[in-house]
Amino acid sequence: MHCNLCFIGFGNVARALVRLLERKRRLLQSQHGITYSLTGIATGSHGFAVNPQGIDVQLALEKVESGKSLSPLSTFQVSDSLAVIRHSNAHVMFENSPVNHHTGQPAVAHVRAALEAGQHVITANKGTVVHGYRELTALAKSKGKKFLFESTVLGGSPLFSLFRETLPLAELHSFKGILNATTNLILSRMESGETFDEAVKYCQSIGIAETDPSADVDGWDAAIKVAALVTVLMDASQPFTPQDVERKGIREITPGMIEQAKASGKRYKLVCSAERVGNKVKARVAPELVDSSSPLYGIMNSSSGVAFRTDVLPDYSITVTEREGMSGGPVETAYGLFADFVNIVTRH
Amino acid sequence: MHCNLCFIGFGNVARALVRLLERKRRLLQSQHGITYSLTGIATGSHGFAVNPQGIDVQLALEKVESGKSLSPLSTFQVSDSLAVIRHSNAHVMFENSPVNHHTGQPAVAHVRAALEAGQHVITANKGTVVHGYRELTALAKSKGKKFLFESTVLGGSPLFSLFRETLPLAELHSFKGILNATTNLILSRMESGETFDEAVKYCQSIGIAETDPSADVDGWDAAIKVAALVTVLMDASQPFTPQDVERKGIREITPGMIEQAKASGKRYKLVCSAERVGNKVKARVAPELVDSSSPLYGIMNSSSGVAFRTDVLPDYSITVTEREGMSGGPVETAYGLFADFVNIVTRH
Repeated sequence: MHCNLCFIGFGNVARALVRLLERKRRLLQSQHGITYSLTGIATGSHGFAVNPQGIDVQLALEKVESGKSLSPLSTFQVSDSLAVIRHSNAHVMFENSPVNHHTGQPAVAHVRAALEAGQHVITANKGTVVHGYRELTALAKSKGKKFLFESTVLGGSPLFSLFRETLPLAELHSFKGILNATTNLILSRMESGETFDEAVKYCQSIGIAETDPSADVDGWDAAIKVAALVTVLMDASQPFTPQDVERKGIREITPGMIEQAKASGKRYKLVCSAERVGNKVKARVAPELVDSSSPLYGIMNSSSGVAFRTDVLPDYSITVTEREGMSGGPVETAYGLFADFVNIVTRH
Repeated sequence: MHCNLCFIGFGNVARALVRLLERKRRLLQSQHGITYSLTGIATGSHGFAVNPQGIDVQLALEKVESGKSLSPLSTFQVSDSLAVIRHSNAHVMFENSPVNHHTGQPAVAHVRAALEAGQHVITANKGTVVHGYRELTALAKSKGKKFLFESTVLGGSPLFSLFRETLPLAELHSFKGILNATTNLILSRMESGETFDEAVKYCQSIGIAETDPSADVDGWDAAIKVAALVTVLMDASQPFTPQDVERKGIREITPGMIEQAKASGKRYKLVCSAERVGNKVKARVAPELVDSSSPLYGIMNSSSGVAFRTDVLPDYSITVTEREGMSGGPVETAYGLFADFVNIVTRH
């Protein structure tokens, strides 16, 4: 089938996805009979483009990457994201615009508009899951469409799809994992002798920590991911928010504590966990000492992973281990979006 | 939809599957609209039963577990497995009969007969994958049916389905893992001070090693699983057999070597690996020293796991960790068969 694609947000992740789609174009067609065109693009500072006949992909990448406007590529007069969604005639909308984490906007509004217009929606925006999962999933269902978000946790590696596609009717009792790469890298570097401040500076220098690192080091990013996992995989009877996660960051971990842990064959990890207790779910983000018998012990630097306990299998863990040239960047996030795309098209 | 199920082989695994199906009966119907009947059962020493109206499940379990024959439950005169397949009017056949690992028979013949009769086939028999993957998959395809075998490697946990359903168009470059639980338990117990012979005896006492333990300790079981993974996931240009796997078992590992490894923070693991080199795949089973930076280091006792390197993600590992009451037994193998079943019915 032929798919018209609409991109709301055209930053690093979206452009990595476009390059991945181009690289896999031949396989998409030969293995799955999928062809595609880009019919809509909305950017923050490079304008908007809509062309239901297909926008020239290479030209669009070039324009944005050389700081030019996309408007000359547009066959429609459009001046905002919602208009791009409405006029793109898209089958699938990719939402990757900058998001306000307190409100989930404007991403939630974009997703809603696309679903209303009968488009499938795929996003890497955690905010849409935290602030809109129930509403948007219900809306998608009512339209016979899908709202998928593989890339919001574990950066593009299979996790939501693992449960949805490969673990049918498994009941998730609990999980335990490392979901924030920045704090894991900070703790790893402190084990090698750096102070907290030095380690934070290093993370900022390689672009994985913000100027204000508090979202990571105070455990907010981890709590958002825990809330997303609980909401989607544990079907909590109440909406589960990041505020419902008991949360403690890593600011109090001193080099002395790290040394002492090391001497006894242990290390600190910012552990994310959730457990079903009766009808409720108790969830927590906090530094914990783990020893080498824990599957979390070997997860170092910007690697991450999580172990799941279900009613049907021994504990099943997934670990995503950084490697040269492949560590939590836009390329992997793009793959999660790509996988959602193939999944939707081959099943609908 | 309503599914007639046929069971060829009705040992521990098949009966655990029947109990799991019964336990999930309500959810199968409410979540997926699936109802089912058992319409055929073939056993080695408790006779055969065919009833297209549905065999009484509890009665069948009771009869076999109390050493009685199933024949009184049959509405057809049948006296062999192929007749059960043909007369069961089944939509799905579960093949779990004892298999000859050198020939894959009679399992391969059962699978072929069921596919010819227009049935989907699900099996936990490694022999059918090693000896018949290409033929049986092609036959299934030509009939518009599926031949699935999740439970043949990692005992029921998602692995084949992970690639098939959640990693679309990912190219697998290499993998490295621990796929044989018995040798891993032997090496773990030797680390705690047992000799090789003591550790083997322990494994025999809990039923995870055979009287002749050579299939495990000489690496054959591991090599069979490696060959299955290469065949299915790496699409080798040639059929890939266990004989194509360079293979060395653990007989030469002495307590002295284990002590020495321990002193330097390492341990021996029977490592299974495969790597694409040009157009070929090089595969190997051999004891290797691993340190705590390896994801294999923490896999102890009868746990297992494998790390995958693809073109699209950082290294993605799955680990199956034994826990009290849940460690590689028939219940998990049954879940793999169950997952294949739900997967087939919800996609066809």
